[in-house]
Amino acid sequence: MRKQIGTFDAFDETMEKMRGEGILLIAGVPPNPMTIGWGTLGYVWSKPVFVILVRPNRYTFELIENVKDFTINVLPKGFNQETAICGTESGRDIDKVAKCNFDMKHGECSNAFYISQSVIHYECRIIHKNKVDPGTLEPSIIDTYYEQRDFHTIYYGEILGVFKT
Amino acid sequence: MRKQIGTFDAFDETMEKMRGEGILLIAGVPPNPMTIGWGTLGYVWSKPVFVILVRPNRYTFELIENVKDFTINVLPKGFNQETAICGTESGRDIDKVAKCNFDMKHGECSNAFYISQSVIHYECRIIHKNKVDPGTLEPSIIDTYYEQRDFHTIYYGEILGVFKT
Repeated sequence: MRKQIGTFDAFDETMEKMRGEGILLIAGVPPNPMTIGWGTLGYVWSKPVFVILVRPNRYTFELIENVKDFTINVLPKGFNQETAICGTESGRDIDKVAKCNFDMKHGECSNAFYISQSVIHYECRIIHKNKVDPGTLEPSIIDTYYEQRDFHTIYYGEILGVFKT
Repeated sequence: MRKQIGTFDAFDETMEKMRGEGILLIAGVPPNPMTIGWGTLGYVWSKPVFVILVRPNRYTFELIENVKDFTINVLPKGFNQETAICGTESGRDIDKVAKCNFDMKHGECSNAFYISQSVIHYECRIIHKNKVDPGTLEPSIIDTYYEQRDFHTIYYGEILGVFKT
């Protein structure tokens, strides 16, 4: 049974996992988890937001561009292999949900799916997006992360609910 | 004596104050504190960041556009009047630092000034900026916050250090 918790109650755990194995973004149908290691949390336009970045060449980009809602899934310890698969394989080639034996559930307060094995999950609705601007980005960051010049789109998801097992 | 703390150790206190009276952004010279109520914290490009928004008509916008560094100042209880002044008055018209009796100090690890009365302060260096995109922003947000169509510039400050009294 999952219970709803305060918007930022799981901030520390989310950041720690995000900087470690990564956390899983799911948007659209079919549900296709993608591992992310970057994101920010806070308030914008007086709303709590989870801000995430997706590169335009990712399958998740095709999916998220056509929906409003996404979930962020924080898996428990012991799922490093699954997180690695969802960070390196593409949903264009394999069914990551099947390969990882993830149990998918429909969101509690959104139209996105979440992984029932996650210890924490966020349900978010996109209220804004913009793009990384290469013209104002620190040149060393371009060299390190954008050799292909595949600059991320940045999605601002209003946090509708945060749930914990 | 201020001591350096972990990057996100003061997240809860910062968010609580930000959503209450507000926290103070200082960029450029002369140091001109501006109260902000919105911002996000997390990791982008593997760096810890404090992301803030400034409207183009603000005096702070003129200042921050010409520098790399800014500070975020979290004042203790009892400074509501000062926070209100720094949120409503413009540094073009008055010297907010003098009016609020703020004691300004040069940053510990940046070229921005901070308020020595703050209980927590962040020192940040801008590594990216982009703009709120009205074309992708939720229409109700435009109606509520952008009647003048003065869309914010969004600054990504790498967190160089966080300090606590």
